Amino acid sequence: MAKRTPTAETAETMARKQRDISVSEFFLKNRHLLGFDNPRKALLTTVKEAVDNALDACEEAGIIPEISVDIQQIGPNRFSVAITDNGPGIVRAQIPKIFAKLLYGSKFHRLRMSRGQQGIGISAAGMYGQLTTGRATKILSRTAGAKQAHHIEVQIDTRKNTPTILKDVMIEWRPEFQPTGTDGSPGEQVVSAHGTCVEIEMEAAYFRGARSVEEYLKQCAIVNPHLQLHFRAQLLKKEGTAEEPAPTAGEPATPPAAGSPWTTFFRGVNHLPPPPVEIKPHPHGVELGLLMQMMKDTPARTLRAALSQDFSRVSGKVALDICERAGLDPRANPSRIAHRESEALFKAINETKLMRPPTDCLSPIGEEQLLAGLRKEMTADFLTAVTRPPTVYRGNPFQVEVGLAYVRPGDQADLGADEPARVMRFANRVPLLHMAGACSITKAIAGVNWKSYGLAQPRGSLPTGPVVIMVHMASVWVPFTSESKEAIAHYPEIIREITFGLQECGRQLAVFLHKRRRLAEQDRKRSYIALYIPHLALGLKDILDLSDKDEARVVSSLNDLLERTHLETT
Amino acid sequence: MAKRTPTAETAETMARKQRDISVSEFFLKNRHLLGFDNPRKALLTTVKEAVDNALDACEEAGIIPEISVDIQQIGPNRFSVAITDNGPGIVRAQIPKIFAKLLYGSKFHRLRMSRGQQGIGISAAGMYGQLTTGRATKILSRTAGAKQAHHIEVQIDTRKNTPTILKDVMIEWRPEFQPTGTDGSPGEQVVSAHGTCVEIEMEAAYFRGARSVEEYLKQCAIVNPHLQLHFRAQLLKKEGTAEEPAPTAGEPATPPAAGSPWTTFFRGVNHLPPPPVEIKPHPHGVELGLLMQMMKDTPARTLRAALSQDFSRVSGKVALDICERAGLDPRANPSRIAHRESEALFKAINETKLMRPPTDCLSPIGEEQLLAGLRKEMTADFLTAVTRPPTVYRGNPFQVEVGLAYVRPGDQADLGADEPARVMRFANRVPLLHMAGACSITKAIAGVNWKSYGLAQPRGSLPTGPVVIMVHMASVWVPFTSESKEAIAHYPEIIREITFGLQECGRQLAVFLHKRRRLAEQDRKRSYIALYIPHLALGLKDILDLSDKDEARVVSSLNDLLERTHLETT
Repeated sequence: MAKRTPTAETAETMARKQRDISVSEFFLKNRHLLGFDNPRKALLTTVKEAVDNALDACEEAGIIPEISVDIQQIGPNRFSVAITDNGPGIVRAQIPKIFAKLLYGSKFHRLRMSRGQQGIGISAAGMYGQLTTGRATKILSRTAGAKQAHHIEVQIDTRKNTPTILKDVMIEWRPEFQPTGTDGSPGEQVVSAHGTCVEIEMEAAYFRGARSVEEYLKQCAIVNPHLQLHFRAQLLKKEGTAEEPAPTAGEPATPPAAGSPWTTFFRGVNHLPPPPVEIKPHPHGVELGLLMQMMKDTPARTLRAALSQDFSRVSGKVALDICERAGLDPRANPSRIAHRESEALFKAINETKLMRPPTDCLSPIGEEQLLAGLRKEMTADFLTAVTRPPTVYRGNPFQVEVGLAYVRPGDQADLGADEPARVMRFANRVPLLHMAGACSITKAIAGVNWKSYGLAQPRGSLPTGPVVIMVHMASVWVPFTSESKEAIAHYPEIIREITFGLQECGRQLAVFLHKRRRLAEQDRKRSYIALYIPHLALGLKDILDLSDKDEARVVSSLNDLLERTHLETT
Repeated sequence: MAKRTPTAETAETMARKQRDISVSEFFLKNRHLLGFDNPRKALLTTVKEAVDNALDACEEAGIIPEISVDIQQIGPNRFSVAITDNGPGIVRAQIPKIFAKLLYGSKFHRLRMSRGQQGIGISAAGMYGQLTTGRATKILSRTAGAKQAHHIEVQIDTRKNTPTILKDVMIEWRPEFQPTGTDGSPGEQVVSAHGTCVEIEMEAAYFRGARSVEEYLKQCAIVNPHLQLHFRAQLLKKEGTAEEPAPTAGEPATPPAAGSPWTTFFRGVNHLPPPPVEIKPHPHGVELGLLMQMMKDTPARTLRAALSQDFSRVSGKVALDICERAGLDPRANPSRIAHRESEALFKAINETKLMRPPTDCLSPIGEEQLLAGLRKEMTADFLTAVTRPPTVYRGNPFQVEVGLAYVRPGDQADLGADEPARVMRFANRVPLLHMAGACSITKAIAGVNWKSYGLAQPRGSLPTGPVVIMVHMASVWVPFTSESKEAIAHYPEIIREITFGLQECGRQLAVFLHKRRRLAEQDRKRSYIALYIPHLALGLKDILDLSDKDEARVVSSLNDLLERTHLETT
């Protein structure tokens, strides 16, 4: 026997300690992975997850979204957060799982652009509330056509990752904020007859400025111009001060009757973006192991049918080609493909030239909307935007959009000539506010040589100057660096596309800055020459003995000449 | 009814698409979260997870670890990776779950420092192998006293996150690499009678240099001086070149018979670090929701017993104090505490002064070992190390250690005077090679004002100069920024402790650099004066009409004087 310390374990004693870890327990202990590191970030993450879900639900149901975010402080570091939408509502059976079970949802298993993708977010917010206050998540939801709304209260049983229902009744659909809908005649705004309201009580901290809830909502409205968004934050008065309860900027949507006024971000367009279409996996993005799994599970009876039915961009003809190249019988039963045959199939697929994946699964913002968004943000001297053609990483279609604005130096206090450029990052129309340092977008911006476009740039850093850079990545699966979805992972294909977009904008900026510099230079020269004109005229008058009138004419024609030359050279 | 686009969904159609997402599916799609972004990193992550497990198992069983890492290239981008240890082995029933089920293990539910903590790593490596090659994970394991070894092959059923056993036989314990053990008489090295070998076939890429497997193993040996580590990489010859099969540096451990030589990192000490002890949660780190859960689940019959038995640092007397402060009956049934009473209890606990958590759950490296590690790495002009006293974040004890080395500029090619300092990061004795930018350690280093310690430092960056900085965080729960465990999350308490450690080392460095500068300055002055001595003597000779001998004596005594003065001032 080995010499052992008193606490030494054996294989047998260690075996008795092995056990399952529920995914809720895991994320409870690792809640910083979900964006619940601290009370301030917890509040933002909660709002973000709820708004993302509301937007996704409305768009999928073809409803133009109207959403309210209602934050109430109920203790020194305790808040109640309620998000209400005019979406399609949720059927009774799904409510507990959607709000109190991690890894549950409809978006994970499909290939289509949406804000949510993991089936974690909103349940995690409820779990955080439960952890810090012991309270349940309250849901009020009415589906279209239902007589009443379901009022349900749930908590997560973290040991099992299952919902525990604490309350389940039918009540009137009368959420505190009443979102309007277009359910009546077109254009007429009535209280929406359906929708969902989720309310979570949690430990939190309310701040303003960078990375705040307000900043998030503002950016959210920019990239979702079809969204009407109402917001209020009712804070407790600090002891001894007479602070206004909700000092929010913007116009109140309703007269401030009881409580705080609402801030409204009005929608800019009255139609939804084109709905993205679900696609099948592209064969070139499928690994060997996954291919084997798909062949085993396919409902198709023949290899040829399996290839053409389960993948995008594989026609019956292409499927035949692949089978031939792999030396396999196209009529073979796909579920009986042995290991060696799978490898041949995998090789044949990757040697076959295929069309790129379809891109109607994406819904980019578009150059026009990007420019409009930037214009809303600031009065810029120069604006440009580019939507790159879609491309692919690991078989997933994605598309990059870049906007760039140049503000006259000194025009905006927070955009100094010596400050780093302000960067706005978005993924699937969701603003990313945290973890900029870990994001592909930051990496791509720092990697571009901005000096060649006329901006200063410390080595390996963001460019400096009165510049705002906006980058959006749209994809059926955005590879985030953590479950909190705050930064895009460093896939070389993604960084390359962002770089191309930045360079396109950079070249436009260089043309603008170059022209501006040339004009300034000419202005300077011209004013020198203009200074000499009276002296020249005076000299001519002396030499030629001209009258005062003649002198004035000389001055005028010399000025004319200067003006004309100037116009011709610009 | 709302006007809907053709693809519009209703609450009912959406409900039909909702489903469970298995944790394996989730991480398969998000495999970059686990460190499997690309083939190169996948290889490193696999080695890392297997070595971490082997080290943990050996230490828990009180066995001085000997581990081999065997990498064989079997195709252009396909490798077989085998890690063998002399650990206690694994009992048959646990093998499939340990190697083919995510979120399963013994380390998650306890509070004690160990390398593994999530129950994800090694199963994820197997899942990645399965995904990229379709192959199963092979395990060979013999427990102490068992006649034969279990040979098991498993894959993950990713739909259910459960193991599928493909092979399960008993064979001789004869792994390719035979680790030795101390099972015979002390000091005698025989082939270990027990241990585990795990072999995974996967798509990978083998590189050297920064963030390579070799670099990882080298750093691993530095912070685990009790580890004997063998390593070989057998690469395929590139076509048309006569490259050596395994160009590894270091001495071969066995004569290169068939195949490549092994590189061995020999152990430096022949004893294990003191085993860390499992502790109970500290009341000040427990949130309200968790407290309620604990009270509901406790086996204790009274509130007082529950408090003193389930928490650390709560004696019977302290428990009574807490109950009294909360206005609760100490004999009450803890599982029947209502919500309002829990809040009172929570408040009372946090108002009660308690001893800090016990720290024997940690096993720091120690200043001496840190210095030894740095010395192994380089020949430094100056070395210093500090082990900070343990402290607490979110109720979890942790401890920070910092080492700092200053190399003479120009001595080491990779440590230039204008290059950023080289940083070595460790968490629970595991080297962290990736995602330095997202790590608390990097943030703390960049946040220290190194100029005041005599180093150059660009604004907000690492200091520059021929400096190596080594930081180790030991904790019962290291909060990583992702499941791949590559960077420590930004908890303010952690950054503060690292900063203090760095500042302590910085002050020592400042003293050294100051003294060196002063000496250099004196040297310079002295050499000036020394230059004048012969002229002085010549002048004296002329004035006083001295002999040549007298002149020489004057020179010598002036030199003596200079020397003495110099010695006195240093």
